[in-house]
Amino acid sequence: MSPKPDPAAIRRLGILAGSGALPRAVAEACRARGTGLYVIDLEGAAAAWAGAYPGARVSLGQVGRVLSLLEAAGCDAVTMAGGLVRPSLARVRFDRKGLTLLPRVARLFRKGDDGLLSGVAALFEENGFPVVGAEAFLPEALARAGDIVGAVTDADDIAMGRAILRALSPFDIGQATVVARGRCLAVEGPEGTAAMLDRAAALDAQGGVLVKMPKSGQDRRVDRPAIGPDTVRAAHAAGLSGIAVEAGGVFVLEGAEVERLAAGAGLFLHGFAP
Amino acid sequence: MSPKPDPAAIRRLGILAGSGALPRAVAEACRARGTGLYVIDLEGAAAAWAGAYPGARVSLGQVGRVLSLLEAAGCDAVTMAGGLVRPSLARVRFDRKGLTLLPRVARLFRKGDDGLLSGVAALFEENGFPVVGAEAFLPEALARAGDIVGAVTDADDIAMGRAILRALSPFDIGQATVVARGRCLAVEGPEGTAAMLDRAAALDAQGGVLVKMPKSGQDRRVDRPAIGPDTVRAAHAAGLSGIAVEAGGVFVLEGAEVERLAAGAGLFLHGFAP
Repeated sequence: MSPKPDPAAIRRLGILAGSGALPRAVAEACRARGTGLYVIDLEGAAAAWAGAYPGARVSLGQVGRVLSLLEAAGCDAVTMAGGLVRPSLARVRFDRKGLTLLPRVARLFRKGDDGLLSGVAALFEENGFPVVGAEAFLPEALARAGDIVGAVTDADDIAMGRAILRALSPFDIGQATVVARGRCLAVEGPEGTAAMLDRAAALDAQGGVLVKMPKSGQDRRVDRPAIGPDTVRAAHAAGLSGIAVEAGGVFVLEGAEVERLAAGAGLFLHGFAP
Repeated sequence: MSPKPDPAAIRRLGILAGSGALPRAVAEACRARGTGLYVIDLEGAAAAWAGAYPGARVSLGQVGRVLSLLEAAGCDAVTMAGGLVRPSLARVRFDRKGLTLLPRVARLFRKGDDGLLSGVAALFEENGFPVVGAEAFLPEALARAGDIVGAVTDADDIAMGRAILRALSPFDIGQATVVARGRCLAVEGPEGTAAMLDRAAALDAQGGVLVKMPKSGQDRRVDRPAIGPDTVRAAHAAGLSGIAVEAGGVFVLEGAEVERLAAGAGLFLHGFAP
């Protein structure tokens, strides 16, 4: 890992943009502060907004093309942000540079999400692009500590959820869980938080808490958990009483809207100390 | 917990029958050995087969009725077997005896499945009905040790799955998990193994193992994990390479059919030592 670059010294940031609100929020923050941008839209995941910025759409195997694009655009750092459904390796079409890296990529594909993303970050750094976490551009989006909306009603469930996620952390699984009155209803796998909340909804939770925090040892530059308005809507639909996230560890994207929705739905939102 | 009754000394067994193949297998084994039977069909979960035996259909809140029925039938022991979707407590209609137990039942409902089932077992024992595990009648259905079908191809994934389930055990969640090439694809919650395998199927596992074992500290009399022909079909549909279960800890129901299906689908079936 190279020394952390100073975000203020970055002239042009390359954003490797997956789905969700995070990469767009990074792009908007960069534009607001006058940092140059180049958006690599991964498989069209950022198609809805990437057109407003210089950039290109690439498929996942175009490793050489991505490096050339970043260099041609004059990028001096890269941020990886947003979600991607991991493809089957057999379905990725690699360009020449990608093919030379295939044995290494195949090894990365045997790892959990965190291992894979860290490996991809290392690849960019070796090629001269330091990887900067999205939080460098969005420090105000990290969850605050304490009661953000309402007041915690399920402290025991939060404690149990944190203990479950800590226990799973060594296995590179579980950024989130749902616990309702002492009973764990779901542990998040690669399906993501939205699908996990759908599962909890089907179980007629009637109360309970969504607990979300980074895995210990997780490379937070490349895979920091986030919640947003959709998370609040899904938690409400699942009948939960609240959401608890690690303060400073989880992004709250579109924070004003998140707080408005939570308050309207009667959900608490709490940031617990790491 | 009362001393374990000798199954050979039981004159008439009351089966509290949920869904799935296990309660029916217990009933058939009792009939074959000449043990009397009385089948309590819980909410119609055993409707497909219970009609072949003396018994009654009850709803979950009819605690007093169940105890009276068991006593009137001359039952001297009870076996709890099969699955039940846990209802919301507010939707259970209790009879008079059930209502007197409501505070206690409400406490049980705050527990995980194992806590709830153990509590229900204690309730029967206090009322004079020793609770006997289904394995007392189906010793030959417990998974054997070693390669049951084919040979293990994913030993590392099995080891990882076992470590994940051990780590979750204190939280009364996770009788099963799917691990594919070092990556955990799903942890089973109350949704059950079939729904978890559907999830893994959607993730395009292409290999990987279903690992299933009892939670440590689990009361195996009342909630022993099982696999059956449907498990093999679902594992095959999810693209897994095999199934690994704890030898002596997990039921393999309709074993001949399970082995035939696994062999036909090219899935290994392995029993690991506890």
